[in-house]
Amino acid sequence: MNAQKITLALDAMGGDHAPLEICKGAVLACNKFEDIEIILTGDENKIKACNQIHPRIKIIHTTEIISPDEHPANAIRTKKNSSLRVAMEMVRTGEAQGCVSAGSTGAIVAGGVLVVGRIKGIDRPALGVMLPTFEKHSFLLDVGATVRCKPENLLQFALMSNIYIHKVIGIENPVIKLLSNGTEEIKGDETVLAAKDLISARNNLNFQGYIEGNELAWGRSDIIICDGFNGNIALKFGEGIMQGLKSLITNEMKNSLMAKIGGAFLYPVVKKLWARFNYEKYGGTPLLGVKGCVTKAHGRSKAPAVLSAISAARKFILEDGAGLISSEI
Amino acid sequence: MNAQKITLALDAMGGDHAPLEICKGAVLACNKFEDIEIILTGDENKIKACNQIHPRIKIIHTTEIISPDEHPANAIRTKKNSSLRVAMEMVRTGEAQGCVSAGSTGAIVAGGVLVVGRIKGIDRPALGVMLPTFEKHSFLLDVGATVRCKPENLLQFALMSNIYIHKVIGIENPVIKLLSNGTEEIKGDETVLAAKDLISARNNLNFQGYIEGNELAWGRSDIIICDGFNGNIALKFGEGIMQGLKSLITNEMKNSLMAKIGGAFLYPVVKKLWARFNYEKYGGTPLLGVKGCVTKAHGRSKAPAVLSAISAARKFILEDGAGLISSEI
Repeated sequence: MNAQKITLALDAMGGDHAPLEICKGAVLACNKFEDIEIILTGDENKIKACNQIHPRIKIIHTTEIISPDEHPANAIRTKKNSSLRVAMEMVRTGEAQGCVSAGSTGAIVAGGVLVVGRIKGIDRPALGVMLPTFEKHSFLLDVGATVRCKPENLLQFALMSNIYIHKVIGIENPVIKLLSNGTEEIKGDETVLAAKDLISARNNLNFQGYIEGNELAWGRSDIIICDGFNGNIALKFGEGIMQGLKSLITNEMKNSLMAKIGGAFLYPVVKKLWARFNYEKYGGTPLLGVKGCVTKAHGRSKAPAVLSAISAARKFILEDGAGLISSEI
Repeated sequence: MNAQKITLALDAMGGDHAPLEICKGAVLACNKFEDIEIILTGDENKIKACNQIHPRIKIIHTTEIISPDEHPANAIRTKKNSSLRVAMEMVRTGEAQGCVSAGSTGAIVAGGVLVVGRIKGIDRPALGVMLPTFEKHSFLLDVGATVRCKPENLLQFALMSNIYIHKVIGIENPVIKLLSNGTEEIKGDETVLAAKDLISARNNLNFQGYIEGNELAWGRSDIIICDGFNGNIALKFGEGIMQGLKSLITNEMKNSLMAKIGGAFLYPVVKKLWARFNYEKYGGTPLLGVKGCVTKAHGRSKAPAVLSAISAARKFILEDGAGLISSEI
């Protein structure tokens, strides 16, 4: 591609399976991408104990950890030697071109804003996910960066995600819809109605109005805009249903010979389905609206999900996602 | 049970399968419940053409229909001879003890408030559904009556649904949770945080804090409180996923012999699963907070779903749901 070297700071202490799965993911990424160097931030002893070694992986020792039940902004401000804050500082100073963390979403967002900084013209950042669906993926945002939004925030999400999905992911003229409680013109609350008018007025966006809950599962839009509260609930509900189905079918196959035989015959279908709806696989996307690459991986990330988040960060950096958003807003 | 006769006004013109499936549902209900009399409101010719006859079914001819894309309050105010408005008027005057409609949710809610009237002490009504889950049902409300809520509205939803689920449905000391974007104390927006404090302060409620999206699929709470925007999206997303799975598996079984054989062996499991997640079956619940029984059936209701909504209305009337809410609030 090019000879550029990409240095990523990776928060080794964030996420349910840290540090082992994070370190494993780092090795996977270095093996896959020759242009990547990774700096693991975290407890050096614990990281070394994972025994995941690669010549392009370095460690920066940190002494603090931010947990998901801390107040995000306070934690970022006060825990200056936390694995997350140190990773963010490296982005701010340019020592790293991006950072990746599977830690507290709130702290990652707070760090993105307070340490890395917002892009001028963007009031609130947005975190998107590639939502798996029956037909194709939809980029759903926001899923947790900005809990409740003003209409202007939702417009900015539409503008940023349009750039990201077109220029970084490579979908021409992506369809944008706004999540609402029905598709009729009269639906939506005041905020959603006002956002619809603001987004409609932008001729450079391929905006096609409202999308409702039952269409979320079908990929009927390349981009789906909503506030962080709704997006979070929809994303997690989808995860919950698919995990439930998986464990239900697994249990039935354990307990019933009929189900076991049936499951064996249906294996190709089921395998395809789980692969398609593997939420963790698609979990890592960059926080849109900050002056750099700050990528959130799923809290339950194991090594492949960490690799996926690192891949997303790498792509965002190579295509200069933050620069594009900054220059086009 | 007792010798009380129950007269229900049934909107024959509301819903995707009106009037035929509505009329069929009315016959099913009269056959099932000897204490029920049904008055169908709608176009007499169209209703008669359905040829669904029962000695305890009468028709009141109406000339107007309210469609889902009309402004709900305007439609209720101006279309005085609509099938829905006439059914509501019968509840107001006492000619019927309750009404059932599969028509526009907005119009049913508007009619409940404007025609039947709010219970004193209740600022906004709430519409709940028995959300099917992997373990047991959860009563999710609101799913569309009050799009955005103040903390006080959410408190009132908790109080009303507690009475409904305990006294009408018969679950002792029901667990109540509040839908949020995470279970940690610091999650939620201002409204949800304030609602949490208000609900916590009521010692007569078995309130157990937040529930997040991935737990929705598991019935981890008897009652789940949220605003109508979130509830609507969650409910429809769940429906969309289950419908998608059904059509995906059906297609695979058509196109692949392996899948067909597998499906045949798995038939008991799949049948159980579809029966459990049949959203339409559980669609009908009374609008809580109005002075009478106003029951919304799913817009896609076929005869069994209409029967289910009529059963729910009958139970609400027999247990005097509206009276209990009125006296306890």
